[in-house]
Amino acid sequence: MYVLYHGWRSSASRRVRLCLAEKGLAFESRIIDLTKMEHHSPAFLKLNPNGVIPLLILEDGRSLYESGTICEYLDETHRDPPLRPDDAFQRAEMRNWIRHVDGLIGNLIIFNWAHSMAKVATQWSDAELAEKLKNVPSKERREAWLRTARKPYTDEERQEARDKLRIGLLDRMEAMLAEGTWLLGARYSIADIAAVPFIKRIDEEISPDEMTAARHPRVHAWWQAIQARPAFAVANIGPFTGS
Amino acid sequence: MYVLYHGWRSSASRRVRLCLAEKGLAFESRIIDLTKMEHHSPAFLKLNPNGVIPLLILEDGRSLYESGTICEYLDETHRDPPLRPDDAFQRAEMRNWIRHVDGLIGNLIIFNWAHSMAKVATQWSDAELAEKLKNVPSKERREAWLRTARKPYTDEERQEARDKLRIGLLDRMEAMLAEGTWLLGARYSIADIAAVPFIKRIDEEISPDEMTAARHPRVHAWWQAIQARPAFAVANIGPFTGS
Repeated sequence: MYVLYHGWRSSASRRVRLCLAEKGLAFESRIIDLTKMEHHSPAFLKLNPNGVIPLLILEDGRSLYESGTICEYLDETHRDPPLRPDDAFQRAEMRNWIRHVDGLIGNLIIFNWAHSMAKVATQWSDAELAEKLKNVPSKERREAWLRTARKPYTDEERQEARDKLRIGLLDRMEAMLAEGTWLLGARYSIADIAAVPFIKRIDEEISPDEMTAARHPRVHAWWQAIQARPAFAVANIGPFTGS
Repeated sequence: MYVLYHGWRSSASRRVRLCLAEKGLAFESRIIDLTKMEHHSPAFLKLNPNGVIPLLILEDGRSLYESGTICEYLDETHRDPPLRPDDAFQRAEMRNWIRHVDGLIGNLIIFNWAHSMAKVATQWSDAELAEKLKNVPSKERREAWLRTARKPYTDEERQEARDKLRIGLLDRMEAMLAEGTWLLGARYSIADIAAVPFIKRIDEEISPDEMTAARHPRVHAWWQAIQARPAFAVANIGPFTGS
């Protein structure tokens, strides 16, 4: 059986759980607590030197990280149901779309980390904070931790992030959905899966007003269809806010 | 025939030219002059709203951007010679490797832009610079232009970039090459192609001392083998320095 190191609220983890659920694949769940920096712990770094979740351990012990890569691997090795287009050009568009959505993650973090991450990080002493930051390899993530711990994002920054998600995600999806029910047309694919964790957060907190049938009618219908899929319940994409 | 919008010195363009050359595919060449910001011109943005090269125009008029995506598309549509591993896990590793190398581009830019980009950008007046920056959508690239035009990267920054390329690229490649001639083993692949433009620059300017048989013997041998491939000459990966 697969072993998945993941977080319930981690966007990339949510994508992989969705993909596994669509394929009907079971996995042994190992939770990594990001607020405890478990992804930067020596034990986890032994499994994944990149210090990121999700991490999928295959049955033969080899492992894969990076949600887009994991999803495409799962689709290549478990064909039913197919989660990529049959057409090479559309597969290329799928890969660029995933990459594009990945590039928007900074805008999501501004909202996401204000919850459980902030609850923990604001309690750290300066010495603790400095010690924790030492283990974070990426400059962008160090900055995000620092901001979360000491200098919460301003209303202007939150609005800018909101705008980028509207233009880069909602408006683009609205245009893509003119061609069919799903982002790449008739077949539900990893392109749709890639957007789900973002849309979930936009719908529940970031810009619910943009998710109405009046503002983005096709995205609104897509989101209803996504939530109606049995895999959505299995993947456990729960609310972010609350305890 | 394909039409390729590209730059001779652009790393991503060099990857796509290498891939086309390995496949023996001809293309109509359209040069985009980055120093003239032609990639942010209204004419080019009509072709690619993302404002990046390379851009491959297919015979039916559709287009693709992003070098990794283009190379994989070319391999899916022109099977001979194959440039991806047959094994799904190795294909996943290939995609993560390309992504990893992509993430190092900022360290290459510090050296690359000090040449022709700086020659042009340092001549701009403050008003011209401000006007040019307005057209650059990415924050990272705006910063790179600003630094190139007004505040050249320091020796410390250059050394830090050099170190990151050594650790993230050369040391990792040395380990990967323990398994075979090429980065993913026996078959030359897009994983190798992805590294070529970086190694070219490391070898000619950034850290030639790290490219010796004494320092990185397997990378040294790999680089000799790469340059001996007929496709390398066809792809025209020329020197960066000089006029």
